[in-house]
Amino acid sequence: MALFKVQALYDFVGESNTAELSITTGEVLTVTRTDIGEGWWEGLNSRGQSGLFPEAYVAKIEETAPPNMPPPALPPQNDWTGAQQDDDWDDEWDNDDTYSEIANNAQREPHYTNEPNQNQFAYGSGQVDNISESSYNVDNRVTKKSLNIFSSYVKSGLESYIFGTLKDIPSHTKIRIFRENDNVFRWELISDPYTVQVTSPKKASKMGGLKSFIAYQLTPSFTGIEVSRRYKHFDWLHDRLSEKFNIIAIPPLPDKQISGRYEEHFIEHRRVQLQEFVNYVCRHPVLSTCDVWRHFLTCTNEKQWKEGKRKAEKDQLVGANFCLCIEAPDKDLLASTIESKIESSISYINQMDQCIKGLMQTASDQQKKCENLYKREHTKIGESFFQLGVAFEHREGGLFSDLATDVKKIGTTYIEIAKLCEDQAKIDWQPLTDKLYLYRGITSSYPDIFSMQKHAEQKKKECERNTQFSHQQITEVRKRTDVLTYSVFAELDHFQAEMNTEFRSAMRSFLQEQVNYYKNVVSRLEDTLRKFE
Amino acid sequence: MALFKVQALYDFVGESNTAELSITTGEVLTVTRTDIGEGWWEGLNSRGQSGLFPEAYVAKIEETAPPNMPPPALPPQNDWTGAQQDDDWDDEWDNDDTYSEIANNAQREPHYTNEPNQNQFAYGSGQVDNISESSYNVDNRVTKKSLNIFSSYVKSGLESYIFGTLKDIPSHTKIRIFRENDNVFRWELISDPYTVQVTSPKKASKMGGLKSFIAYQLTPSFTGIEVSRRYKHFDWLHDRLSEKFNIIAIPPLPDKQISGRYEEHFIEHRRVQLQEFVNYVCRHPVLSTCDVWRHFLTCTNEKQWKEGKRKAEKDQLVGANFCLCIEAPDKDLLASTIESKIESSISYINQMDQCIKGLMQTASDQQKKCENLYKREHTKIGESFFQLGVAFEHREGGLFSDLATDVKKIGTTYIEIAKLCEDQAKIDWQPLTDKLYLYRGITSSYPDIFSMQKHAEQKKKECERNTQFSHQQITEVRKRTDVLTYSVFAELDHFQAEMNTEFRSAMRSFLQEQVNYYKNVVSRLEDTLRKFE
Repeated sequence: MALFKVQALYDFVGESNTAELSITTGEVLTVTRTDIGEGWWEGLNSRGQSGLFPEAYVAKIEETAPPNMPPPALPPQNDWTGAQQDDDWDDEWDNDDTYSEIANNAQREPHYTNEPNQNQFAYGSGQVDNISESSYNVDNRVTKKSLNIFSSYVKSGLESYIFGTLKDIPSHTKIRIFRENDNVFRWELISDPYTVQVTSPKKASKMGGLKSFIAYQLTPSFTGIEVSRRYKHFDWLHDRLSEKFNIIAIPPLPDKQISGRYEEHFIEHRRVQLQEFVNYVCRHPVLSTCDVWRHFLTCTNEKQWKEGKRKAEKDQLVGANFCLCIEAPDKDLLASTIESKIESSISYINQMDQCIKGLMQTASDQQKKCENLYKREHTKIGESFFQLGVAFEHREGGLFSDLATDVKKIGTTYIEIAKLCEDQAKIDWQPLTDKLYLYRGITSSYPDIFSMQKHAEQKKKECERNTQFSHQQITEVRKRTDVLTYSVFAELDHFQAEMNTEFRSAMRSFLQEQVNYYKNVVSRLEDTLRKFE
Repeated sequence: MALFKVQALYDFVGESNTAELSITTGEVLTVTRTDIGEGWWEGLNSRGQSGLFPEAYVAKIEETAPPNMPPPALPPQNDWTGAQQDDDWDDEWDNDDTYSEIANNAQREPHYTNEPNQNQFAYGSGQVDNISESSYNVDNRVTKKSLNIFSSYVKSGLESYIFGTLKDIPSHTKIRIFRENDNVFRWELISDPYTVQVTSPKKASKMGGLKSFIAYQLTPSFTGIEVSRRYKHFDWLHDRLSEKFNIIAIPPLPDKQISGRYEEHFIEHRRVQLQEFVNYVCRHPVLSTCDVWRHFLTCTNEKQWKEGKRKAEKDQLVGANFCLCIEAPDKDLLASTIESKIESSISYINQMDQCIKGLMQTASDQQKKCENLYKREHTKIGESFFQLGVAFEHREGGLFSDLATDVKKIGTTYIEIAKLCEDQAKIDWQPLTDKLYLYRGITSSYPDIFSMQKHAEQKKKECERNTQFSHQQITEVRKRTDVLTYSVFAELDHFQAEMNTEFRSAMRSFLQEQVNYYKNVVSRLEDTLRKFE
């Protein structure tokens, strides 16, 4: 507990029904916690009310309040009421299967587990003490990324990393970054590449059929041993990866969906999307080798699962501190190099983000149109011809029965094409949409990465200007900042290389399927045409 | 003038703003004309008001009115205010070119010309006398078909024909009908088949460019001499044919259209539609040999045009009396044969009419969709890919310039396909729509034909029951009715044979164009796909 007095420099009106505390300029508050992170402090006012307020809005009592100035920008606002939004997940997070039990045991422990159905900021409940006494007793444990769905900008643990405040750095394997050429950086290649097959989604049930769920089978090539994972396990994994790798873009999981969750098509499509996610992680030099991922891929034992889960949730090398695991080129980065690469990357990623989003919307829209509009149109064409054929048939004497048969054949051909068109969408537009969804998830996480890099640079510059820092300290800070920047570069270049390969392949598949579809249409129409020759 | 007294048997409320006269049961009227046709008489009431009322609603004064009975069905109601609807045609019927002058000179003559822009029933004007004294002075000249757009059921001259009242039958060539087999009848084949090419629509102008019009060039194979005809000449011809051939389905002309009349596409499309019309007439054994058609195809001289026009308009062998030109098999038709063939034909034509209409709507709708919706969708696909390609290009260093180029190529390919799709509609859906439009015009005129045949049969039966008729008279009536029925049969069988051939050919062309389109799409996509292999 912090326990020191501060005076409010500005008015702050807390959101009602949140943990925020309204404060009035001049008011004296007792700070009870400073380790909330993201610029928030916790304190008590004179009326005994407790809550969160922006650190920048108060000054320690011994300081003199600055003269009239506009209040600084508010820190990012967490979604303190997150638990309400998570209602939908309850069903996904039921307690009735083996892995679920593991997960929920963990939740019941005093550790801060980041389970998405847990109210992260349960202030006013007895949990506060638990949290402050357990999870938050290490300086570096202030990572907020993925604590809330809402969280968009995170500088988690950045100062801790830049200023090297993490004590007792755990042992870890170094991940090397090398310079491929003047402007291109690479994560060290995966020494033992592997693949993981996501197969056979199975519907299973517990509690005598009261609760049911879908389990996907994962088989890593390096073990050949199948493990069974539910969507919620992927979700837990995704939280861990997002928390640990603030400077690595984590591919998105398929959207949660409540209705139609047990429909065959939905399940199979989610399998394909999970396979996309798994593939991306497998090909990533850093992600594919990290402990939590390996644990997720290999653990078949409940006790080990529990241990691995707890270990992952206690990982200290998360957020910016993950950079402690990185061995970057031993060459200072020039400010101009950094600026030019970062600026062009920001512009590139922004544009790419928009274009991927645009094509994704088009692809998704076309898929729907193939399944509905175009199918309907082709069916209507088919029916119109077919009915005309029937009208020819109607004529007694069979004088025109050939024409009747042939015109009806045009009808059935277009009705077949309608079906082709519907089926087609699942093999051309849908896979393209899935690929674009994955990359769109990645491009959309870059602003946070760029922002972190920018803040690291700012911190570095502040140090360089600060006369209290020794030359050695400044050198250390520079080195750490460079490592972070090198990591961002390596990640950017990895992303681009991946996208280049993957998009080329996705476009090829898409075009090939389009060609197949149109060839199929031609072939059916030609068959029908022959009747008229 | 008739001038005899009648008493109203029923109330009749005339439509306001028309030539109809309201009459009240018991009222005494002076009949001034009985030759209006279609069940209408003209008379004066005691207040001196003049107008039309249904013949069946009155009884000659010497007759005793029947006791309370529901009034008989109203005669078909003509569109007395037709002139107002014809306003749109004025522009089409301007007076400023050679052929137009010919046409309008004819209109100014005392003859009843059936020009569509003339108010047919200009009662209350001085024209009434002209009409009754000139056009209507021959018994057989009561044809009302095509007098008004509204006219749907016409028994024009039926009684005149059945009872053989036409005096001084003009000389004419006989058209033979032969029995092909038990149930199929044929018009005698055309001895000298020919074709007519409709070419080079030309925009011309008169009065120093104040008035402009489009002239189509027609070249019959039997003369090789090009004649120039405007839409309004086709329209005049169509009126003549419809008037003369009540038992032959006249193919429709393309719709009148005011806006966009001078747009290149509209003009070319109308040319194609006129060619369809011309082709149908050329292949018809009766239509292709008739005088007015020959006159239309060959006349190049203004004086001759005028003479031919007047001759056509004065033709006495019109309506049912055209049957006087027909030489049918000399074998009485069995009532059962007639009934079965007519009933099945009615049902067949009804169904065909619906199905042709259905497919025509689909085809016309698809054409619009190709030109708008599908084009737009393909363009959107193309643009989405193209923009993604540009985003790849944007990356400095040209690392991914190949992918940029190739993805842009996908974009341009789909934009090309969008254009193909638009162009395509004019070579597959539009010709199909045109063909269906023609046949739909024909099927929709069959109810009138069937109705006429049915009324002829009724007249025949009335005669057979009427003891006043001699055996010889009844035989004559029977023979004439059979000739009319044979003609309907021959026309039905001609129509079906034509439709069989023409639809087979239209479907073949349509399918061939669809195949070409899809092959073209495949070829472009394959070209693009090669960039990705």
